[in-house]
Amino acid sequence: MSSTTAAYSLKIRVRLDNRPGALGDLATAVGATGANIVGLEGFEAKGKHLDEDLIVNCRDEEHQQKVIAAVEGLDGIELLSWEDRTFQMHDGGKIEVLPLAPVMDREDLSMAYTPGVARVCMAIHDEPAKSHDLTIRRNTVAIVTDGTAVLGLGDIGPEAAMPVMEGKALLFKAFAGVDGFPICLDVDSADELVETVERLAPTFGGINLEDISAPRCFEVEERLKASLDIPVFHDDQHGTAVVVLAALQNALRLTGRKMEDLKVVIAGVGAAGVAIGKILLTAGVAEVIGTDRQGAIWEGREDLNVAKQWFAENTNRERKAGTLKEVMEGADVFVGVSGPGLIDASDLRRMGKDPMVFALANPEPEIRPEVADGLASIIATGRSDYPNQINNVLAFPGIFRGALDAHAHSITEGMKVAAATAIADAVSDADLAPDHIVPSVFDRTVGIEVARAVAEAAIAEGVIRQ
Amino acid sequence: MSSTTAAYSLKIRVRLDNRPGALGDLATAVGATGANIVGLEGFEAKGKHLDEDLIVNCRDEEHQQKVIAAVEGLDGIELLSWEDRTFQMHDGGKIEVLPLAPVMDREDLSMAYTPGVARVCMAIHDEPAKSHDLTIRRNTVAIVTDGTAVLGLGDIGPEAAMPVMEGKALLFKAFAGVDGFPICLDVDSADELVETVERLAPTFGGINLEDISAPRCFEVEERLKASLDIPVFHDDQHGTAVVVLAALQNALRLTGRKMEDLKVVIAGVGAAGVAIGKILLTAGVAEVIGTDRQGAIWEGREDLNVAKQWFAENTNRERKAGTLKEVMEGADVFVGVSGPGLIDASDLRRMGKDPMVFALANPEPEIRPEVADGLASIIATGRSDYPNQINNVLAFPGIFRGALDAHAHSITEGMKVAAATAIADAVSDADLAPDHIVPSVFDRTVGIEVARAVAEAAIAEGVIRQ
Repeated sequence: MSSTTAAYSLKIRVRLDNRPGALGDLATAVGATGANIVGLEGFEAKGKHLDEDLIVNCRDEEHQQKVIAAVEGLDGIELLSWEDRTFQMHDGGKIEVLPLAPVMDREDLSMAYTPGVARVCMAIHDEPAKSHDLTIRRNTVAIVTDGTAVLGLGDIGPEAAMPVMEGKALLFKAFAGVDGFPICLDVDSADELVETVERLAPTFGGINLEDISAPRCFEVEERLKASLDIPVFHDDQHGTAVVVLAALQNALRLTGRKMEDLKVVIAGVGAAGVAIGKILLTAGVAEVIGTDRQGAIWEGREDLNVAKQWFAENTNRERKAGTLKEVMEGADVFVGVSGPGLIDASDLRRMGKDPMVFALANPEPEIRPEVADGLASIIATGRSDYPNQINNVLAFPGIFRGALDAHAHSITEGMKVAAATAIADAVSDADLAPDHIVPSVFDRTVGIEVARAVAEAAIAEGVIRQ
Repeated sequence: MSSTTAAYSLKIRVRLDNRPGALGDLATAVGATGANIVGLEGFEAKGKHLDEDLIVNCRDEEHQQKVIAAVEGLDGIELLSWEDRTFQMHDGGKIEVLPLAPVMDREDLSMAYTPGVARVCMAIHDEPAKSHDLTIRRNTVAIVTDGTAVLGLGDIGPEAAMPVMEGKALLFKAFAGVDGFPICLDVDSADELVETVERLAPTFGGINLEDISAPRCFEVEERLKASLDIPVFHDDQHGTAVVVLAALQNALRLTGRKMEDLKVVIAGVGAAGVAIGKILLTAGVAEVIGTDRQGAIWEGREDLNVAKQWFAENTNRERKAGTLKEVMEGADVFVGVSGPGLIDASDLRRMGKDPMVFALANPEPEIRPEVADGLASIIATGRSDYPNQINNVLAFPGIFRGALDAHAHSITEGMKVAAATAIADAVSDADLAPDHIVPSVFDRTVGIEVARAVAEAAIAEGVIRQ
């Protein structure tokens, strides 16, 4: 049975008789359904009745209904109203656009709007690079999707993708002060997506691609990187890859092992898998083998898309052609970005000594940490309720902050590796442990350090506007 | 000589000797250049020196330089630094994107982002209309331009258009609480512009078209109105038209005249001129004649674009074919949306009795109010430094506020007329006067009243999502 979560949280407004035991009855009834009371609001007993808000985490919508029925069934307790807190939080959207300049009087209007604004327009017209200083381009990133691969929900379309992109905008602002704005596009092909983003580029200082299905996502990112002079970054690929590298760096720091000695098997060669393979090779890993449902990717295998073809040409030097379980034999690191329950304890036993397991499928990992425990020296997942969560919110806000601060026109492999190292270094020697190889996503220093490292790398590589 | 303006305002930081007369010397030197000191900041005499910020409005950039030279030339006064306040206000852009939901801990993240957000995505996927409730679509309007007709500056391109669109976003928020976001597009044709906005539509609750050249703007608006199920409104056309109608309503209220008795000549049949013609006909004006550089628009004239063709078919019933000056003979109202100095006093003398003049070319009107004074019963311009400014900020924020509040899928002619009447009614009987036929742009009740009237009209016409 899954556990209760804020994702299925209720706010229940009740009226209690003001008598000893009333609250106890209520709490007992809610608890008996297995729901978790995480908050009481407005609790103050006065007069004959007492109105009260109860915050209750449930397992799912069916469970929510059980809790409501339980409350309705109580004597001396009236259910006044209830709301689903997740929907309530999304009501009307999660971001707003706020003025940075006043328009209180004619003087303000003359500067922020006509006639003064014409001077600023002409300054940009005369010198287009000034648009990065005199407009929101300096701090604003488009969060672009076509809605074809939203979370694990698949191709749900641009309208339904909006809440995720708005959520991303929240994270950009909260973790790095970047103004992110959702751009959910009704397009039917990579061509249309590329073309539309190119047309939108004058408005933005950077493009964060998001939740675009593979293999389309590879082509879209490559073409936009080639055609645009602002940073383009597909977060599902590189955000995850950067945090995996950070975690691996810290795993090696703990165990004294070296990148050059590692054989890594990556299960799943979609957006994240390909980017993880690339960044690990850049970081010096000796051998990478990727697998899809047909088994290992090797040079010569047929029916490979462009991204898998890159994988075939750059990994698996020995052209091993077996199943996932076969190529895991003797490997040092397993990285799963595929689906639930793909491997089991016997697979870990056939890996090399003290194997490391990054089972990142969400919500259900390739192998449960409980199963891997004792067999793997390091266990990481994509989940927040286990140690070592690989969460790309550690990466993308600081990466764009650094790129914007440095006036970078690209985000290079070197900048990504710098970001990974900054994330790894955010875990102090004292805190570093097998169950703490990545910092907390709520550690606000991470974004700052990532930004600094990324900006320095951009300047060192010279990928900046002069 | 033009007057000093906040559009050319300086902030000058100086260090004065702390002696009687030092400030007087400074103020005298600045005043001698013709500049206007409008503010002193941080003025407090302590110790030997006194650091001080002077806010000085100038006429133009050359004049700014004269002021700086004058300050530098003074004994006992050191110029520490100076900045151009208009550019300083635009530094880094004029809007930001702010979170409406907290992401302070795991509970927040579980609701605003994964896993909770997936529930909201699927709710929209199951019922797409919910995107208007559960995302920023409820309150967010795209301010879209291709940069082809920015203010009076012409085709300066999308990057250079950004400061105007950001300014518009300021006005949307300040005057009606609408979240406006600039979308400046690098497109080469009406087809590309239409196609791009259609692809962007899932992100927005409305489309405000802006600064798009005529005749392209007519086609773009018509096609988008037909294809999209959210309000589309070309402000250069309809914003101006709504305020002109409001002003004319109040002029009639003052003079007791009737729409049905009026003959109106419109000089300039671009974006604004066409929309003014349409709304005046809707409001019941008896006769409209439009003119361009070739003279009157009449049915049968050749080389008319699609918008002028509409004009030819729906105005000028007698098919008059003369020059502007010829068709003004006997007219009751002149509306100029063309260029400076187009008409003179003799033209007003040949108009009907007590003619009304709306000379809206900016910054230089078709006829100066000083020249029209005594000849016209009502004089309005597009300028803030004369009475009766026709400023579309009176219209567009409230129109979109009302459309969004009513869940309107279109903005109809009826909604525009309702907006005009609300603007007119915002001038009380007590305040109504020949030099006060439109409310102040800073009267914050106007947006509220326009929104209410527009929402009511939308509901009455049934152009709302159910």
